[in-house]
Amino acid sequence: MKDEKGILFILSGPSGVGKGTVRKALFDQDPDLAYSISVTTRPSREGEKDGVDYFFKAKEDVLKMIEQGELIEYAEYVGNYYGTPKAYVEQTLEEGRDVFLEIEVQGAMQVKENFPEGVFIFLFPPSLEELKNRIINRGTETEDLVRNRLLEAKKEIDMMDAYDYVVVNDDIENAVSRIESIVISEHCKRERIASQYKKAIGSVEL
Amino acid sequence: MKDEKGILFILSGPSGVGKGTVRKALFDQDPDLAYSISVTTRPSREGEKDGVDYFFKAKEDVLKMIEQGELIEYAEYVGNYYGTPKAYVEQTLEEGRDVFLEIEVQGAMQVKENFPEGVFIFLFPPSLEELKNRIINRGTETEDLVRNRLLEAKKEIDMMDAYDYVVVNDDIENAVSRIESIVISEHCKRERIASQYKKAIGSVEL
Repeated sequence: MKDEKGILFILSGPSGVGKGTVRKALFDQDPDLAYSISVTTRPSREGEKDGVDYFFKAKEDVLKMIEQGELIEYAEYVGNYYGTPKAYVEQTLEEGRDVFLEIEVQGAMQVKENFPEGVFIFLFPPSLEELKNRIINRGTETEDLVRNRLLEAKKEIDMMDAYDYVVVNDDIENAVSRIESIVISEHCKRERIASQYKKAIGSVEL
Repeated sequence: MKDEKGILFILSGPSGVGKGTVRKALFDQDPDLAYSISVTTRPSREGEKDGVDYFFKAKEDVLKMIEQGELIEYAEYVGNYYGTPKAYVEQTLEEGRDVFLEIEVQGAMQVKENFPEGVFIFLFPPSLEELKNRIINRGTETEDLVRNRLLEAKKEIDMMDAYDYVVVNDDIENAVSRIESIVISEHCKRERIASQYKKAIGSVEL
């Protein structure tokens, strides 16, 4: 059935959980997924292409987009803005392609508000002990800093309630395969496809 | 996480769609699934074992089970009763195993009423034209009979609205793989597992 629209999937989770690695492995296996292209105010680096790596914009243009609600989420980072343009996401979905967004928990909450029909996947650490060890082993952070980062992670995990799915990142291959199952299964959801099927039935002559 | 309960999956769809074939192929690939064992009042045949093929019961016992709401669905067929015992389903789910029920649309509607927490999967014919051809080619049915059976199939397809998922049986392997994705993805649903994960977090010392 070809009329079907794409689905926006949002992959998020606490920092340190391995979102980027999982997302890359997923894209290697599923070339049909479209990665959401962000707008940014930072200058392009050598080799980066406008409309491929980012949509490069002037600060005033991005501020205007924010003001007019044209970004489904945005953040400021070291003086530059980064955001996800609604128009690009919607156009890609209209073409029947799924869009995949890998994003921090705070950004995911903005998407939830501006694009509630998205499918929200929370990547969960294999165990909290391991997340603790990873944070401790990352470097020469003081005990207080480690404690703060863990409290932060706990808070982020509390936001799990806003998500549709929870996937444990016990092993990258397992996590990717579970996410692929979620993608397939979401396309089988009755409320997405029933109307097309019913149309198909109606056209059969008795 | 080991506290997780199993899930009851109900596979249904119009007659002629290939439910039995898909179910068998699914069980060949996933030996962890428990097939729901029915009670029946018909006498056991050679080689059939009580508690394996069926729970063989006297008619009065089954009528009593129906009266006391101990069957999540039942039907009478050529003078014998067949039904799905709630106790067996619930006990298997408690053990953490998924239960799979392959059933006619009418029976599925009864399950929906008595066990709404089940996951309902509707198997859809690759095309209505093909379902029509299959019914016509089945034998020497008159034009009127074919028309009636098609009207019946259309009515059954209208019940699609009560289902969670629609899977097209375009190819057995594809259909089985979609159903397996649904099984995996349902186990990742946040509302099923979030509380266990939160418990796991709570136990980590900062």
